[in-house]
Amino acid sequence: MADRVKVGIVGLGRWAQVLTRAAAKSDKIEIVAGFSRSEEKRQAFAKATGVAPTPDMKTLLARPDIKGVIITVPNEQHLPVAREVAAAGKHVYTEKPIAHTLEDGLEICALPQRYGITVTVGHSARLMAGIRKIRQAIDAGELGRVAFIEANFSNERALELTPQTWRWYKDRAPGGPLSQLAIHQFDVLRYLGGDVAEVSAMASKLSPVGAEVDDQSMTLCKFTDGKVGYVGACWTSPGIFSVRVFGSKGLMHYEIDFGTWDTPWKLHESSVLYIQRGKDGYAKREVLTVPESDMFRTELEMFADSIRSGKSNELSADNATASVAIVYSALKSLEENGRAIALSQTTDAARQRTREALHAV
Amino acid sequence: MADRVKVGIVGLGRWAQVLTRAAAKSDKIEIVAGFSRSEEKRQAFAKATGVAPTPDMKTLLARPDIKGVIITVPNEQHLPVAREVAAAGKHVYTEKPIAHTLEDGLEICALPQRYGITVTVGHSARLMAGIRKIRQAIDAGELGRVAFIEANFSNERALELTPQTWRWYKDRAPGGPLSQLAIHQFDVLRYLGGDVAEVSAMASKLSPVGAEVDDQSMTLCKFTDGKVGYVGACWTSPGIFSVRVFGSKGLMHYEIDFGTWDTPWKLHESSVLYIQRGKDGYAKREVLTVPESDMFRTELEMFADSIRSGKSNELSADNATASVAIVYSALKSLEENGRAIALSQTTDAARQRTREALHAV
Repeated sequence: MADRVKVGIVGLGRWAQVLTRAAAKSDKIEIVAGFSRSEEKRQAFAKATGVAPTPDMKTLLARPDIKGVIITVPNEQHLPVAREVAAAGKHVYTEKPIAHTLEDGLEICALPQRYGITVTVGHSARLMAGIRKIRQAIDAGELGRVAFIEANFSNERALELTPQTWRWYKDRAPGGPLSQLAIHQFDVLRYLGGDVAEVSAMASKLSPVGAEVDDQSMTLCKFTDGKVGYVGACWTSPGIFSVRVFGSKGLMHYEIDFGTWDTPWKLHESSVLYIQRGKDGYAKREVLTVPESDMFRTELEMFADSIRSGKSNELSADNATASVAIVYSALKSLEENGRAIALSQTTDAARQRTREALHAV
Repeated sequence: MADRVKVGIVGLGRWAQVLTRAAAKSDKIEIVAGFSRSEEKRQAFAKATGVAPTPDMKTLLARPDIKGVIITVPNEQHLPVAREVAAAGKHVYTEKPIAHTLEDGLEICALPQRYGITVTVGHSARLMAGIRKIRQAIDAGELGRVAFIEANFSNERALELTPQTWRWYKDRAPGGPLSQLAIHQFDVLRYLGGDVAEVSAMASKLSPVGAEVDDQSMTLCKFTDGKVGYVGACWTSPGIFSVRVFGSKGLMHYEIDFGTWDTPWKLHESSVLYIQRGKDGYAKREVLTVPESDMFRTELEMFADSIRSGKSNELSADNATASVAIVYSALKSLEENGRAIALSQTTDAARQRTREALHAV
C-alpha cells in the first residue's frame, strides 16, 4: 500500500465521505488531507474518515507528497478551485457536472494544457458493471447495429424542495432534473452511442412545492451517426435508473435500485441486466449476471492512473463538458419550443461569450 | 347465443381471421358474412372460419339481419368503405388507424351524425388487462399525481421491408414506425393521461434495406394538464411493448411479449405488471397479477354494445382521430426540425384542406 498515489480532498460534505470510503478500499489512491472553509465540516470529516483536516487550501497545495486534489465543492466553485489546484501543479478530480455553466466547463478543459496536469470528472454512472457489459456486447457485435437508446433517471426530489435548498433555483439547478439527473444519462448515452450532434427537449413544472425549476424533463438526442436517444427524468416519482439499448440483433436492458447509489458495491444485489436476442420475445429474455463493482473506487483509481501517467482517461474534461453542452442545448431547445439545437452551436456561443468577457476585462 | 348481434366483415386478409376467431368466443357478436373483392381470399376465409362469403358488398349491406360491418381493408380504403356501410344504415367497426390521413379520419368522424350509426375503431392496446389495471390505479389515486409516461412499441419490421411491401413507402406508412407502431401507444397515453396538446418528434433512417420511410421514431407529448409523455418506436430491434407511468406516490410498469399479440388470451402468461411505491426502490417492486383478457373480443363486444344502444363507446372515431392528429403533428414537427406542434393547429389545417377540396369539386 506504500505506493498509493496521495491526494487531498476539498469540500467536506456528505459526498467527500462517500468518496473517502471508496478510496479506503483502493490500493491505488490514498486521501491524506481534507480541506473545507467550515471548521465544523473539517472536524466531522476527520471524525468520520480518520483523514486529517488542513486549516487552509494553501497548506494543502504546498505539500509535495500530494499529487492531486479531489474537488467536491458546489458546482459553481468547480472552476475557481480547479484553477487553483492546477496552478499549484496538482492533478484535478472534480465531481460531475464539471461545472454549472458551459463556459466554466470549457475553461476547465483548458487547464491540462496550460498547467501540465490532468483533469478527471466523476461521471460514475458509465462505470457501473451493467453499463460496461452493455458496451462490451455492443463492441463484440452481439447487438448488431445499435439504432436507439432509452434511458431514465428519476426520483422524488422535487416533492421535497424548499427555498432553502439550492436546487429550488433556476440559476443553480438549470432545468431541474435535466441538470441534476439527466446529465448522468447523457454521459451514459455518449459512452454507449458516441457523440451527440443535436438535441430537442420538453419540460414541465408540476410539483406543488412552487420551486423555480421545472421538475419534468424529456430530451431527444440525435447522435452523429444517426442513431437516436431519449433521456427521461421525472423529479416527482419513485427512484428509477434504467438504460435500454436497441440493436438489430439484440436488445439489452439494465436497471438498478437507486437506493444503492451511495453504496455501489451493493448495486449488483438489486439490479437486473438482460438481453433479448433476434426475434425472441419478452418471455425468452436471458438474464445476465452483473458482477460486483464499485463505480466510485473505479473513478478514483482512474484518477490515480492519470496522475501516474500524466495522461487523461475516458472521464476527461472534454468528455464531461460534452454532457454540459447537451444540458444547455436542451435548455435552448426549451426556449425555442422544442426546436433541435446543434451542440456545436451551443458550444460556439459559449466560447464567444467567454472571449467577449475576457475582452471586457 | 341466439341474441348475438350479427355483423359482416369486409377485407378478408389475415386480420379478418384473427377477429373472426375472437368473435367466435363471444356471446354478444356473431360474424355471419364476409366480403372481399378477391375470390381467392373469400374461399380461404370461408375455409378457415366457416363463415359464408358474400360475392358482393351490395348483397352484404342489403341483409336486414346484419346490423354492422367490420372493416379490415387497407387503411386508405377505410373512408370509402365506412361511408358505404354507414350510408346503408349499418354501424361501422374499422381497424386502427381510423384512416391513413387526418382528413379521412375527420370525415369518418362525421358519419355517425349524418347516418345515425356508430363508429368503433379497434384501438385494442388500451384494452389489455395490464393497461386497464394501470388506469384503475390512477383513478383510485394509488399513483398520486401522474406527471410522466413512457411507452415503447418496437419490432424488427424495417429490417425486412422490400419495395413490394406497402410499408416501404412514405405515402402509405408515413413516418414508418410512427404511424405503424407508435400510434398504438398514442392511444394508450391518451387513455391513461388524457388529451395531448402538442408534440415534438425526432426520426432517423438506419435500416440497410433502403426503404423510403424512416425506421426510428421518438415523440414527446405535452398533455393539456402539463404532464409529459414519450413514445419510442424502433423498427430495427427485437419486439417490445412497454408502458411506464410515473406518479408522485407510485410508478407502474407493464410489458408484454409482443409474440402473443395475435393470441391475446395468452398475453397474461408472458407479461409483467408491477408497482413501485413511494420511495421504495427497484428491489421492493410488487409484481401484480394480470388477469386473462382478450383485447380483440373486448373491442368487438364494445362494437356490439354500441350497435344495440346506438351510443358510441370509448373507441370512438373522435378518439381514434386524435391519435392520427398526433402522428401528423409529429410529422410536421419533423419537417420543422423538432419544433413542438399543437394538435389543434394540425387538425384545423386538415379541416381547412377538406373544405377547400369540397369547394374545388
